[in-house]
Amino acid sequence: MWATIQSDSPRRVDPESRAEYLAFACDLATRAGKAILPQFRRPLAVDNKKPGAGYDPVTKADRAAERAMREEIGRRYPAHGILGEEYGFEPGDGLTWVLDPIDGTRGFVMGLLHWGTLVALFDGQRPVLGVIHQPVLGETFAGDCANATYSRGGESRTLATRPCSDLGQALAGTTAPDLFRTDRQTAGFERIRQVTRGMRYGTDCYLYAMLALGLADLVIESSLKPYDVQALIPVVEGAGGVITDWDGGNPAMGGDVLATGDPRLHELALAELRN
Amino acid sequence: MWATIQSDSPRRVDPESRAEYLAFACDLATRAGKAILPQFRRPLAVDNKKPGAGYDPVTKADRAAERAMREEIGRRYPAHGILGEEYGFEPGDGLTWVLDPIDGTRGFVMGLLHWGTLVALFDGQRPVLGVIHQPVLGETFAGDCANATYSRGGESRTLATRPCSDLGQALAGTTAPDLFRTDRQTAGFERIRQVTRGMRYGTDCYLYAMLALGLADLVIESSLKPYDVQALIPVVEGAGGVITDWDGGNPAMGGDVLATGDPRLHELALAELRN
Repeated sequence: MWATIQSDSPRRVDPESRAEYLAFACDLATRAGKAILPQFRRPLAVDNKKPGAGYDPVTKADRAAERAMREEIGRRYPAHGILGEEYGFEPGDGLTWVLDPIDGTRGFVMGLLHWGTLVALFDGQRPVLGVIHQPVLGETFAGDCANATYSRGGESRTLATRPCSDLGQALAGTTAPDLFRTDRQTAGFERIRQVTRGMRYGTDCYLYAMLALGLADLVIESSLKPYDVQALIPVVEGAGGVITDWDGGNPAMGGDVLATGDPRLHELALAELRN
Repeated sequence: MWATIQSDSPRRVDPESRAEYLAFACDLATRAGKAILPQFRRPLAVDNKKPGAGYDPVTKADRAAERAMREEIGRRYPAHGILGEEYGFEPGDGLTWVLDPIDGTRGFVMGLLHWGTLVALFDGQRPVLGVIHQPVLGETFAGDCANATYSRGGESRTLATRPCSDLGQALAGTTAPDLFRTDRQTAGFERIRQVTRGMRYGTDCYLYAMLALGLADLVIESSLKPYDVQALIPVVEGAGGVITDWDGGNPAMGGDVLATGDPRLHELALAELRN
């Protein structure tokens, strides 16, 4: 299913269109947040998308938020494709909106705060823009690979990662240790956990936003889906960071992902993962 | 150092005084939050309290917040004792204010949100009241073992845990898997992780607040200090939950702690920990 959104000849997006699409992506995420907030910390029917094979919760908040975004995309850019976590893939003209209405639903259903709405626009090879939105705080982290900004209420500022060229000083994080399953995944995660200064858990998309804010140094994750990662890429890169798969390749289709704020740290971490 | 705050003859606190102290504890936590917020997500000198033996960060935000609370206690209740994470124990008349200015400093320094200011009043055997305050959201969870309330801005409501009498349905959490170190700790945590529906990480004090809100079912932690746990006890109990050590005993001095929203779930989890 995912492979069909990829293309050998990516769609060009000129700078003016990119700016327009980025503003639209921020608007989409805000609409999703408005659909989610009335459900936050309310008693919610939680469906399990993997009955018998684990726990993968989804709620009417996830579904309502994705529907709100799909409707708006259909009104404004009916030729574009859509790939969303809850309602699948709808092919388009080569540009695809990639949506995760709530990244971190496990935390969301427990009333926690490290979750967000993710919106990206994919050109067939790379996301050209991405938005991470946390509705409870009203925060938006938006990037286009070259620049990234933070906004909350009236406040707006440029996102910039911080320097950190020593793994022993790096503050790292991941969502959960149990998400590393294969031998390569568990060994790689354990290596990074041992060489970094501290490993923080339970972070989902939110730690990538903190990395872009210059407050965290490294994020390591496994088995991501395209809609888990695409929105993060233009934000991390726009803030000066690096995000790839564990072999240094294009992370747009998900899988095992490594992000750092400092490019030097990324080289060091990739070397650890090769060991 | 901790043993000296305990007493075989606990100080009685009548209901009127308890209400007065609880309002004061909320005021203390708010003052701490005002000292912390200007430092949140700012570049901060982070000192390591365990150089050469791990990573235990402390910042001027922790210290300023504890000083603000100590000053106010000295003005209002100069006879009372104080035990705080950053400035140690100052004995008093048998009632002791137990303070953790930032519980979850590791998350705080990374810009994350699952941390809070903890305030308890200890009678020599049990905390008679406790407050969990999250300054970024302006949330306060306050309890006196019999009742507990949530307040944010003008909103205020009674806290109540939810029923959940099946470990296989329980949403559980802990701060980090690496905090379980002894054989008993690692085996007990692993057992609870396997029998519950999902284990969420990176939660510190905040998941106890979510348990009191009726959104989580079980919290399991290890090697807590008195100031990590005392404020949580009157909130969890006041909301209808149960919190003990792993043997079902008084958790006030910390150690290995188990909290559930439903008392039936607590019995089942203790039985798993005994296996």
